[in-house]
Amino acid sequence: MVLGRPEWRLFAGTSRLGGSARACCRSCGSALPIRGTHRAVSHWPAAHPFDSGSAYFVMGDGGLSRKLGKQTVRYLNPPVILASATVVGPREGAGPLGSQFDVVKEDHTLGEKTWEKAERRMLEEACALVLRKARLRFQDVDLFLAGDLLNQIISANYAARTLGIPFLGIYGACSTLTEALALGGMLVDGGFAGRLLLTSSSHYMSAERQYRYPTEFATQRPPTAQWTVTGAGAILLGIGTSGVAVTSATVGKVIDAGMSDPNDMGSAMAPAAAEVIYQHFCDTGADPTSYDVIVTGDLGKVGSELLHRLLAERNLDLRDRHLDCGVAIYSDQQDPHAGGSGCACIAVVFAGPLLRRLEVGRYNRMLLVATGALFSPVTWKQGESIPCIAHAVAVERREG
Amino acid sequence: MVLGRPEWRLFAGTSRLGGSARACCRSCGSALPIRGTHRAVSHWPAAHPFDSGSAYFVMGDGGLSRKLGKQTVRYLNPPVILASATVVGPREGAGPLGSQFDVVKEDHTLGEKTWEKAERRMLEEACALVLRKARLRFQDVDLFLAGDLLNQIISANYAARTLGIPFLGIYGACSTLTEALALGGMLVDGGFAGRLLLTSSSHYMSAERQYRYPTEFATQRPPTAQWTVTGAGAILLGIGTSGVAVTSATVGKVIDAGMSDPNDMGSAMAPAAAEVIYQHFCDTGADPTSYDVIVTGDLGKVGSELLHRLLAERNLDLRDRHLDCGVAIYSDQQDPHAGGSGCACIAVVFAGPLLRRLEVGRYNRMLLVATGALFSPVTWKQGESIPCIAHAVAVERREG
Repeated sequence: MVLGRPEWRLFAGTSRLGGSARACCRSCGSALPIRGTHRAVSHWPAAHPFDSGSAYFVMGDGGLSRKLGKQTVRYLNPPVILASATVVGPREGAGPLGSQFDVVKEDHTLGEKTWEKAERRMLEEACALVLRKARLRFQDVDLFLAGDLLNQIISANYAARTLGIPFLGIYGACSTLTEALALGGMLVDGGFAGRLLLTSSSHYMSAERQYRYPTEFATQRPPTAQWTVTGAGAILLGIGTSGVAVTSATVGKVIDAGMSDPNDMGSAMAPAAAEVIYQHFCDTGADPTSYDVIVTGDLGKVGSELLHRLLAERNLDLRDRHLDCGVAIYSDQQDPHAGGSGCACIAVVFAGPLLRRLEVGRYNRMLLVATGALFSPVTWKQGESIPCIAHAVAVERREG
Repeated sequence: MVLGRPEWRLFAGTSRLGGSARACCRSCGSALPIRGTHRAVSHWPAAHPFDSGSAYFVMGDGGLSRKLGKQTVRYLNPPVILASATVVGPREGAGPLGSQFDVVKEDHTLGEKTWEKAERRMLEEACALVLRKARLRFQDVDLFLAGDLLNQIISANYAARTLGIPFLGIYGACSTLTEALALGGMLVDGGFAGRLLLTSSSHYMSAERQYRYPTEFATQRPPTAQWTVTGAGAILLGIGTSGVAVTSATVGKVIDAGMSDPNDMGSAMAPAAAEVIYQHFCDTGADPTSYDVIVTGDLGKVGSELLHRLLAERNLDLRDRHLDCGVAIYSDQQDPHAGGSGCACIAVVFAGPLLRRLEVGRYNRMLLVATGALFSPVTWKQGESIPCIAHAVAVERREG
C-alpha cells in the first residue's frame, strides 16, 4: 500500500490507526506517534529526510508494536506460567526456604560419577517434574530454552538430548533465567510457540572447579565470596488467560564497572542491576511502588548494598521491597559468606517459593532482575575486568 | 469474550475467523482448523475433553499463527537483511572466496596479545563495519544476539560491552548463526525489535587450544579433522519490504548418533542436519527443488557425504544443489583436511559471498542449515558421545 509518495510504504500487518499508531524511520529508527494517515505523511519528511525506497511506516499492531522505550518489550498477549518445578541439593534443602522446593536431594552426587553428570541429572528431573505437574509429555512442548554456567552449556545441551524438544541454547551466566523468560515471552506472545520449557541450573562443585579452584584444594574464601547454588529450576511458559503472567521485559546492556575479583561477583553485578532497573522504570513509567517486590538473583549481601547505593544516586529507593534470592536461600548459620549465587539461585527461588507467593496473592506484581557475570577464567587470567548484564522481567498475578 | 460456555475463551488478539482460524486445546496442545464460532464450539468438547477453566481458543492472527507443523515457524512479516559484514584471517583470505570478504587480516593476531583478544577484535570490527554500511549508529540497533565457541561466549560478551547494545547471548556451537537468524526473525516479526545485530565468530588458534590441543604441540591431524575458520560475520536484520528476507525457520532437536571423536565433527553433525532438513520439508511442504541451493555450515567433505547418504534413505537427493561452507572456504591446496569448521564458517560465507549471490539474483531461494556439536572437552573426557543440533532457515530474495 502506497501513501502519497511511492517511497512511503505502509508496512505489512498494519491494521488500524489511532492513539497507539506509530511511524518508524528506517534510516534513523525513531518512532513517532501519529494520529492519521495524512498527518503522518505530511509530518514525516520534514522531521526525517529519507532515502528513496528506504523509508517505511510501522503502525498499530504491525511492526514495533511491542517495543516500549529504549530497551523494553511489552507482551500484548502476556504468556502465563503453566507450571514450575525445582530440584535442589542438600545445603539448599537445609536453608530457610528448604521446605518450599519440590525435591531436595540427599547428596550432591545423585549417584553419578561426576559433578557435571549430577547437575545434568538434576536438570532432567526438574524438567520431568514440571511436565508431570502440567500433565503434559515432552512432545507437547514446542521449544526448550535453557542455559547454565558450564563451558558450552553442557547441562542444557545434554538435557535437551534426553528431552527431545526443539532446543535453543542461551547463555547469560546467572542472568539466564530472566533471559529465558524475556525471550520465551516474545516467542509465545509473537505466536511462534504455544508452550516453552525454560530452565537454568548450577552445581556448587562443578562451578567452583571450573571458575575458581578445585574444591579439594580447600582454598579460603573471602567474606565477599558467594556460594553457588546446587539445583535446577524449570518453568513451563505458554498461552493462557489466568495465573502468573509475564507482562514486560527490559533487556540489559553489558555494564563493566572495572571490577576484576572473581570472589566478589555481587559488587561486579550490582551496577548492571541498577542500570536495568532504572531503564525499566524509564521505559515503562513504573516506579518502585509499582511492584510489591523487586527480586534480584544473586547479588548477595555485598552486591545488594551496592545496588541500594547506586539507585539512591538516582533517587530510587527500593529497600523496603527488595528481595535478593542469594541472601534468602541460605541462613547465616550455613556460613554462605555473602550469600548464594549461580544460575540456579534465582531459578529455584523464583520457580519455587516466589511463584507460590504470587499464586496465593501474597504478591501481585513482581519485578524479577537476574544478573550475570559474563567473564571466564581465561579473560580473568588475561587481565580483563568482569563485564556484567541484567535483564528485568515483570510478572503479575492475573485473575482468570 | 466468552463463547457458549464460560470455560471457553476467545484468546486475546483474535481478530477474525476463516480458513486460517484455529482452535487450540490447553490440555493437549493440538490445533484444529475451524471455520466458524458455532462449529468450533460444538466440535471441541467431543474431540478434546477439557478441564474446567483450562481450555482456550486461539484463532486467526492471535496465538500460534506463526507455527507451522512440528518444529517450524513462518514469519508473517518476513524480516530482511539490511546489511552484512565479514572479517576473516589470512588463510581464509587466501582461499577461493577470499576476494568476496569485506576485510582480510594479514595476520592472526590483529596486533593483540592473545588469540581470544584477536577474535574479539575481529568481531567488533565486523559489527562496526555492518553499521557503517547501513549508515547507522550502535544506538540505532534494538538488540544484539551473538554467540561463539569460546567458554562463556566471551567474544560475544566483551563485544557487547564495547557496542553498548542490549544483549542476549546464545550458544549453539557452529549452529549459532542460524539460531540467531531464527530467533532474530521471531523478534522482528513479532514486533519486539526493529533492528537486530546478529553475529558469530571463531578463531583457529583460540578454538584449537580450548577444544583439542595447544597449537604449539603440533599434533598430527587425522584426515577427518576440520580447520576452524578465523573470522567474524555480522548481519543486520530488520523490518523492511525488499531485499533478502528470512521467511521461515525450523528449530532442531539435539541428535546424538553416538560419535565421540572430536576430530570428526562432520560425521557427528550430519545426522542433525539430515533430521532438520527432513523436518523442514515435512513442516512446510517444500522439497529440495523448492530451493536453488541448500547450504550447510561446516559438515566438511566427510560429513557432507554422510548427509547425502542419510537423506537418500529418506528418498531425498539434494546433491545437485548442496553447498557446504566448510568445503567451499578452503582450496585443496590449503590442505584443510576435511574442510573448514567453526562458528565463523557459515557466518562469513553466508554474510559475504552467498548473500551477494542472493542480492544479484543468482539464487532466489536458499535453505541455510548450520550444524553445531554441543559437547565440551569435559564431556569428552568423561566418556560422553557428542550431541549435535542443526537449525534450518529459509531466506529468499524479494523485490520491493
